[in-house]
Amino acid sequence: MTWLLLLVPVAIGLHFAMPGAYTLVFLVSCLAIVPLAGWLGRATEELARRTGEGVGGLLNATFGNAAELIIALAALKEGLYPVVKASLTGSIIGNVLLVFGASVLAGGIKYKTQRFNVTGARAQATLLTLAAIALVMPAGFHALAGPQGFAREDRLSFAIALVLLAAYAAHLVFSLVTHKQLFAGDEGGAGHAPEWSLRKALLVLAGSTALIAWISEILVGSVEAAAASLGMTRIFLGVVVVAIVGNAAEHSTAVIMALKNRMEISLGIAVGSSLQIALFVAPLLVLASRVIGPRPMDLVFTPAEVLAVFVAVLITGQIASDGESNWLEGAQLLAVYLILGIVFFFLPDAPELAVR
Amino acid sequence: MTWLLLLVPVAIGLHFAMPGAYTLVFLVSCLAIVPLAGWLGRATEELARRTGEGVGGLLNATFGNAAELIIALAALKEGLYPVVKASLTGSIIGNVLLVFGASVLAGGIKYKTQRFNVTGARAQATLLTLAAIALVMPAGFHALAGPQGFAREDRLSFAIALVLLAAYAAHLVFSLVTHKQLFAGDEGGAGHAPEWSLRKALLVLAGSTALIAWISEILVGSVEAAAASLGMTRIFLGVVVVAIVGNAAEHSTAVIMALKNRMEISLGIAVGSSLQIALFVAPLLVLASRVIGPRPMDLVFTPAEVLAVFVAVLITGQIASDGESNWLEGAQLLAVYLILGIVFFFLPDAPELAVR
Amino acid sequence: MTWLLLLVPVAIGLHFAMPGAYTLVFLVSCLAIVPLAGWLGRATEELARRTGEGVGGLLNATFGNAAELIIALAALKEGLYPVVKASLTGSIIGNVLLVFGASVLAGGIKYKTQRFNVTGARAQATLLTLAAIALVMPAGFHALAGPQGFAREDRLSFAIALVLLAAYAAHLVFSLVTHKQLFAGDEGGAGHAPEWSLRKALLVLAGSTALIAWISEILVGSVEAAAASLGMTRIFLGVVVVAIVGNAAEHSTAVIMALKNRMEISLGIAVGSSLQIALFVAPLLVLASRVIGPRPMDLVFTPAEVLAVFVAVLITGQIASDGESNWLEGAQLLAVYLILGIVFFFLPDAPELAVR
Repeated sequence: MTWLLLLVPVAIGLHFAMPGAYTLVFLVSCLAIVPLAGWLGRATEELARRTGEGVGGLLNATFGNAAELIIALAALKEGLYPVVKASLTGSIIGNVLLVFGASVLAGGIKYKTQRFNVTGARAQATLLTLAAIALVMPAGFHALAGPQGFAREDRLSFAIALVLLAAYAAHLVFSLVTHKQLFAGDEGGAGHAPEWSLRKALLVLAGSTALIAWISEILVGSVEAAAASLGMTRIFLGVVVVAIVGNAAEHSTAVIMALKNRMEISLGIAVGSSLQIALFVAPLLVLASRVIGPRPMDLVFTPAEVLAVFVAVLITGQIASDGESNWLEGAQLLAVYLILGIVFFFLPDAPELAVR
Repeated sequence: MTWLLLLVPVAIGLHFAMPGAYTLVFLVSCLAIVPLAGWLGRATEELARRTGEGVGGLLNATFGNAAELIIALAALKEGLYPVVKASLTGSIIGNVLLVFGASVLAGGIKYKTQRFNVTGARAQATLLTLAAIALVMPAGFHALAGPQGFAREDRLSFAIALVLLAAYAAHLVFSLVTHKQLFAGDEGGAGHAPEWSLRKALLVLAGSTALIAWISEILVGSVEAAAASLGMTRIFLGVVVVAIVGNAAEHSTAVIMALKNRMEISLGIAVGSSLQIALFVAPLLVLASRVIGPRPMDLVFTPAEVLAVFVAVLITGQIASDGESNWLEGAQLLAVYLILGIVFFFLPDAPELAVR
Repeated sequence: MTWLLLLVPVAIGLHFAMPGAYTLVFLVSCLAIVPLAGWLGRATEELARRTGEGVGGLLNATFGNAAELIIALAALKEGLYPVVKASLTGSIIGNVLLVFGASVLAGGIKYKTQRFNVTGARAQATLLTLAAIALVMPAGFHALAGPQGFAREDRLSFAIALVLLAAYAAHLVFSLVTHKQLFAGDEGGAGHAPEWSLRKALLVLAGSTALIAWISEILVGSVEAAAASLGMTRIFLGVVVVAIVGNAAEHSTAVIMALKNRMEISLGIAVGSSLQIALFVAPLLVLASRVIGPRPMDLVFTPAEVLAVFVAVLITGQIASDGESNWLEGAQLLAVYLILGIVFFFLPDAPELAVR
């Protein structure tokens, strides 16, 4: 796969040399991300061998979401709040349904039943429910408060963002300090000696993350024009296409870990990534919008986004909370993703999407 | 109970001789179904002794739903889509709340705690959630997409129907091939030698199913006129009355199995029947409507139906997912069924019911 | 803490001597309730040592809700139905989120993992779901049935109230007769010999409950005027402030029990109290309104109340249903309470609140 790395400079070169060739840039960028994701996964695994699976998964989720955060900040600066929110939604449902679903399916085909720490999985599933509640409430408020309440949505979203950040901090204390053994995995990498030096692992991790962020940005810049010619709506684009591409790194690593029967790290990547988007990236963007955005961004998602997040969290909680998985559960998660994708594909761009 | 079989020809005779005596035909048909359901249950049990509980439950659910499928196809041919959808809703909630609730209550009065394979139960509960999500989405789309989206609902429903059929196929592979031991039950019928020959069991199964289908059709034909005089609405009729009658067979078998402390087969009948309606019968009808119906049928259920299915799946998932049951859980399922029945009883017939 | 008891006569005196000094009366009453709650908790614990933890928790929940019932009956007599419903909502979500959340957090800081009987916890979680379904349905009916249905809401609510009372009776039979060992706790107070006589425990229980009821009423009478000057809405007042104060007794007892690692009794108090409000107090008020109220009260809650109850039950079910707890779960429950509090704080008083 190393030769695919050649596509990285090709993608960057095409982006500057032929700025109008959107479809070509799009395809090359997609392929260029694959080997980078491979390196990122390898580096993460090396680190995981040194730190235990839970921390390794957290590291991975952090670096995997760096790309999304950079892209979102760029969109934020230009006030493209509906696009920012659509990509948040897409990342959340994409990670729990597509990434986790593909991991469970792939791992489940190889192993009849895969097990993971049930208390850790439940803690993550419950945090996911908390995140869903927090992200549903502003939209509920929007529907219930009527015109009187619109002016208060900024302050409401700001207050909820602070609660989310506090919950994320509590989650970090829990998973890294007070209950870290829950996320360490049964095998804990014992017996697998690290092959890379810590320095090399960290350098590869940082380098591949930076390149993925760059290529992702080029890719996202090209994807709208490329997809528009294919007759896709903006919301389908944001929720499905951008999110799939932006999570390619997590995707490959999570599947590889599942195939090695290390479901804790797979779950940590997929669900952990969703949690980080919902509990950390989303509220951070709300706060950042007050500094770098043209106006404060609220957390009022469209009804379709609210329904999608709720449904994704519901079925993920059901599947993750028993501490074991099989291929049918992976297929079910993918089926729900497919159904949501179908709905977003047929859904006309709501006029309110542009307004908010 | 054998003498009740005499009511079978009586019901058929009355139907032809006195086509106007709806109330009489209705009552006789109801009673005539009871012994047929008994024979069906006996035949299923004989087969279950030969094939293991899970497969036996699947067989039972298949033959039990043959009646519903035949009735639905007849209504489909005449374009009575709201009636078809109401009976689908009623079958889904009736099986998980009424049939499973009565089984759990009856079994729980006899045995303090009843256990069943938790992984199998969770797989079914998760599939039920998937089914609920799939059946909720078109109604959500209808509400969110606005007039622009109405024209796309056929295609949306068609695409979701294909996902459902794929999920059903995956479920069959899971429960019959890759993980069939989960559905076999602990006792697996060991020690209970079959008393009938395979041939006799299959003949009785087929014969009683066919007669139930016939009587059910007569019964459904008479029930609207009979109930109208009692002041019931069409939706109460479809969701509650038709569904109770159409599931009488599953009902008695599931309760008998619960009383024998074979909860896997009870669960397999009740939840399996709901799953088959949602994942197989419903999408099959969507496809069939394009061939035999006056126009394509969509999967847009009324908001009340959506709420009922969602609520039924929510509480069933909670009750089934711990692998054990007691009488209070059965009473709770019945209480939810009662509450839904009350709501449908008081709910005026929505004008949109007739339109769609 | 005993000297704080001096504030009890002070609060009562101020109430009669300075009826206009709402803010002062409010503060003194709040403080006066603290020692009373302490005595109530002590008495309950003494009784629990004699009866087993489950029955002790039930006793506690019964006496703790006597205050709410008295207050609600007074409001009912004057036809203040929106206030009654808001305080019911507030009690339900306050008990499961605030009281149980604080207990889990406090206990979880002291003990790494706390365990409780999983079957008992699941029975309570499922009953909570049943209660949420029953309380959501009339509002759903209100939204779906349209103007035609408004006249039927009284009868609908009456029928649902009867189902709820039957479910409560079933729950009592289950927890006190057929499955009482599930609620007895592992340690069951064995080794802790009672220190008070049964007579003394009962007298202190009754006395402190009566005084709490009296002070609560004074407090609630003063709280509206006191809070109005602070710019709070009526719904925030009913759902948050009245509920926090009205549940102070349960609150302190539940936290004390959690700190003693007796989570069964903590859960029994918090969730049991919510259950009693939803399955017993609410339907009782519906029936009572037909006798002492100016007109029948229905169970149609506002959409914000419905959303809050649904969300509270969802996350409580997830947290309680695995039979163990840690501090993060407590923090999550409190975070959801905080988010709901923020929503109710910003939510304008809906005009329909006054109408119904």
